[in-house]
Amino acid sequence: MNKLVIGGREFNSRLFVGTGKFSSNPLMEKAIIASGSEMVTVAMKRVDMQNPEDDILVHINRDHIQLLPNTSGVRDAEEAVLAAQLAREAFGTNFIKLEIHPDPKYLLPDPIETLKATEVLAKMGFVVLPYIQADPVLCKRLEEAGAATVMPLGAPIGTNKGIITRDLIEIIIEQSNIPVVIDAGIGAPSHAAEAMEMGADAVLVNTAIAIAGNPEQMALAFKQAVEAGRLAYESGLGVQRRHAEASSPLTSFLD
Amino acid sequence: MNKLVIGGREFNSRLFVGTGKFSSNPLMEKAIIASGSEMVTVAMKRVDMQNPEDDILVHINRDHIQLLPNTSGVRDAEEAVLAAQLAREAFGTNFIKLEIHPDPKYLLPDPIETLKATEVLAKMGFVVLPYIQADPVLCKRLEEAGAATVMPLGAPIGTNKGIITRDLIEIIIEQSNIPVVIDAGIGAPSHAAEAMEMGADAVLVNTAIAIAGNPEQMALAFKQAVEAGRLAYESGLGVQRRHAEASSPLTSFLD
Amino acid sequence: MNKLVIGGREFNSRLFVGTGKFSSNPLMEKAIIASGSEMVTVAMKRVDMQNPEDDILVHINRDHIQLLPNTSGVRDAEEAVLAAQLAREAFGTNFIKLEIHPDPKYLLPDPIETLKATEVLAKMGFVVLPYIQADPVLCKRLEEAGAATVMPLGAPIGTNKGIITRDLIEIIIEQSNIPVVIDAGIGAPSHAAEAMEMGADAVLVNTAIAIAGNPEQMALAFKQAVEAGRLAYESGLGVQRRHAEASSPLTSFLD
Amino acid sequence: MNKLVIGGREFNSRLFVGTGKFSSNPLMEKAIIASGSEMVTVAMKRVDMQNPEDDILVHINRDHIQLLPNTSGVRDAEEAVLAAQLAREAFGTNFIKLEIHPDPKYLLPDPIETLKATEVLAKMGFVVLPYIQADPVLCKRLEEAGAATVMPLGAPIGTNKGIITRDLIEIIIEQSNIPVVIDAGIGAPSHAAEAMEMGADAVLVNTAIAIAGNPEQMALAFKQAVEAGRLAYESGLGVQRRHAEASSPLTSFLD
Repeated sequence: MNKLVIGGREFNSRLFVGTGKFSSNPLMEKAIIASGSEMVTVAMKRVDMQNPEDDILVHINRDHIQLLPNTSGVRDAEEAVLAAQLAREAFGTNFIKLEIHPDPKYLLPDPIETLKATEVLAKMGFVVLPYIQADPVLCKRLEEAGAATVMPLGAPIGTNKGIITRDLIEIIIEQSNIPVVIDAGIGAPSHAAEAMEMGADAVLVNTAIAIAGNPEQMALAFKQAVEAGRLAYESGLGVQRRHAEASSPLTSFLD
Repeated sequence: MNKLVIGGREFNSRLFVGTGKFSSNPLMEKAIIASGSEMVTVAMKRVDMQNPEDDILVHINRDHIQLLPNTSGVRDAEEAVLAAQLAREAFGTNFIKLEIHPDPKYLLPDPIETLKATEVLAKMGFVVLPYIQADPVLCKRLEEAGAATVMPLGAPIGTNKGIITRDLIEIIIEQSNIPVVIDAGIGAPSHAAEAMEMGADAVLVNTAIAIAGNPEQMALAFKQAVEAGRLAYESGLGVQRRHAEASSPLTSFLD
Repeated sequence: MNKLVIGGREFNSRLFVGTGKFSSNPLMEKAIIASGSEMVTVAMKRVDMQNPEDDILVHINRDHIQLLPNTSGVRDAEEAVLAAQLAREAFGTNFIKLEIHPDPKYLLPDPIETLKATEVLAKMGFVVLPYIQADPVLCKRLEEAGAATVMPLGAPIGTNKGIITRDLIEIIIEQSNIPVVIDAGIGAPSHAAEAMEMGADAVLVNTAIAIAGNPEQMALAFKQAVEAGRLAYESGLGVQRRHAEASSPLTSFLD
Repeated sequence: MNKLVIGGREFNSRLFVGTGKFSSNPLMEKAIIASGSEMVTVAMKRVDMQNPEDDILVHINRDHIQLLPNTSGVRDAEEAVLAAQLAREAFGTNFIKLEIHPDPKYLLPDPIETLKATEVLAKMGFVVLPYIQADPVLCKRLEEAGAATVMPLGAPIGTNKGIITRDLIEIIIEQSNIPVVIDAGIGAPSHAAEAMEMGADAVLVNTAIAIAGNPEQMALAFKQAVEAGRLAYESGLGVQRRHAEASSPLTSFLD
């Protein structure tokens, strides 16, 4: 398999995981390990800087894991740039997942502010991974602005609906010169496999693992599904056909 | 994981594979091994009884593999019963995949003849795995008639369209007391994972592996996807939601 | 438009309506009139033979309407044949909608008993309209057995999910020599239009009209949608395309 | 029915039509009349200002029709503003359909330039109808910038795939204070009906009418489908259900 490279760093795993919604930090830790993920998102507000003993980071930090702080909660580019700077200081990384969603109900991203913040942050040396709609033109503009990847959504966050934006994501993948990571909406391993079969470079999963009956086992299921989807992509999938085609010989049995 | 039992035999793998359409027997053999499958279908007409040297069976027979001869090519129950008897003699197994499709274009199964043949073959001691439409009432009647499993189609053979009959297969799975194996239509590992996530007991894949650019690698991809889907089913998948739900804390970042 | 002919009778309307679930008979009557339907189903049990004053039939009988009694509630072919005979006597028509569904939860049809009853009833001179799964092979067998139409389901009764069986219904329409009427699942005018665009000969709608906020207006909406879909079918629809195609000239504006 | 108001003008028809791709102007004229449309888009480049005799406008101008010049072919906000000014002069209307698509292959809109141009044009007194992705946050920003409507795409232009962006358009409709017009992708009357059932205020159709075997008849089909969908929306549609619900009484027939 070709490796995934983002911000000059090589990733063996194409499954990014989030740290929200787990019922406990030890459970989260087990799920992260089972997932094999090397890119783990953290919301800055979740980290208690004053209480290092109980710090969520204790449960994440590993040599092979790239922390990916996100700017969740910011409403515009200005707040996002400030949050990114605080994150860089707090986490010691210039990787930043850019999330700007002014609407608290559906948490959908703002294309204008996201492009603005990407331009600023890329110039400041950040490795910017923006969360956006599956908008092919916006993706090209983010690429030109210096984004390290684009992270189009498959479906609104937490809906578990899969890749409802499939037709648009196919165009994004076709046109992109930077990695395409499917973010949000991935509610089952089959969705993750589908994304990889389409040629996505990686997927980000959080809710579906965190709220599973058994998060550790579900993390393993996603790991396998991502690998299966990537393998299938590299093996060359057949196309859909209108007519049946027999797998078995069609001359009549008793001829 | 709970094991799958059919005809008194235990199966560790939930991926059944077919042997049609491979470009060569050695390539087929590699794919079967990579798939980890323990249930492999063979069309009787493909086996050259006069030429044991070049026999397809040489490339399949393994202790851990159950041969599953199919009746492909028969047009009614009478022909199917005859074919099953010949298959039992030729392959030394009472397992039979019952395929009765009078229409050579779409290869769709005949519900009436399939039920009739199942009744006869079950009484004759066959382990009958009938290929049928995703028809919940027919599935119950086949179960009553002594079928060992039901094998509803996800989509017409060779179309690679996935599980277009999803709503009906959910009902079949809910009502069935015998294993439900999704047959036909599975065109990508994500489809196989989806079937398993729904609670299907196994899937049968042929075309998608056989015509892949790299069949051996594709077989491995399906193996992983089936395991991922089953694991997810056993881990408890979340439900689809109408509204977004944040994975990250939603209070404003700078509050 | 070509007219629809069933049982030797010509129908100007391709919308069949059912009479269940209306909150009152007068409301039902208004909806039937608004629908323009000339084929109206009635469940025998709903008709109170002892009380002609309050009879549901008073609200349906019109010269231009063909009553279509259904056998809802029967569990096998024998009961169905008996019910059809009682219906012929009670309603004075040899039209019969054959519904045999042993399972009270999902109300899905039994293919075996339906074929059996169709054979018997057709020989007895009934105009048989069987409700069945979207099973192309069964449809051909029903046609051979003398069915006047086939009525494959779009989705389970009352789910309002539309034509989830689309790929199979396309095959049925392609192969059928008798009218194809889509029954069950049609939950919105757009579903009815889609069925007609595919080339279906008619649709049967009940729940979606009966439980609408305004059944009379909804009946009119379905009437228009069915006509729109049929008109589109006869006008020749374009095909789906992978790439965008500009409607406006594509040379740059300021060239 | 409530009427649609855009730019202070009242519209009885909720079907907007485009003028591209017709095989002749007279054929286009017949289709426009059959559609009942009161809002007709024209690409400026298509109008030959030097040859008023053969002018496309001769075939469109009617008292009840609002001409809607589009900016098709422009690549950024600056070109769009210039094009809008030329269009205002040429067509004598301040209505402008804003289309900015830098990519000639898929013709997808640029969210950044579209917002920029909308801000400028609204201040200049234009009635701006921007064509955009189904991006709920962008829609709110366009509304704040003074857009008269938003025109999210159902699917890429000319693909005839219908409303693949359904989940996002539902959010747009829920949140919008200005009319929502579905543009692009509407390939069949059933798609148009579906958009109206969802609560869209209008749809724009071009390709599906222009390339139909019989454009005049297809225009009529779309007219009826749009009315059917709107009527259904106003009549209150039922919801999708998981389980079957009988329309006919469920006690056994012979009880």
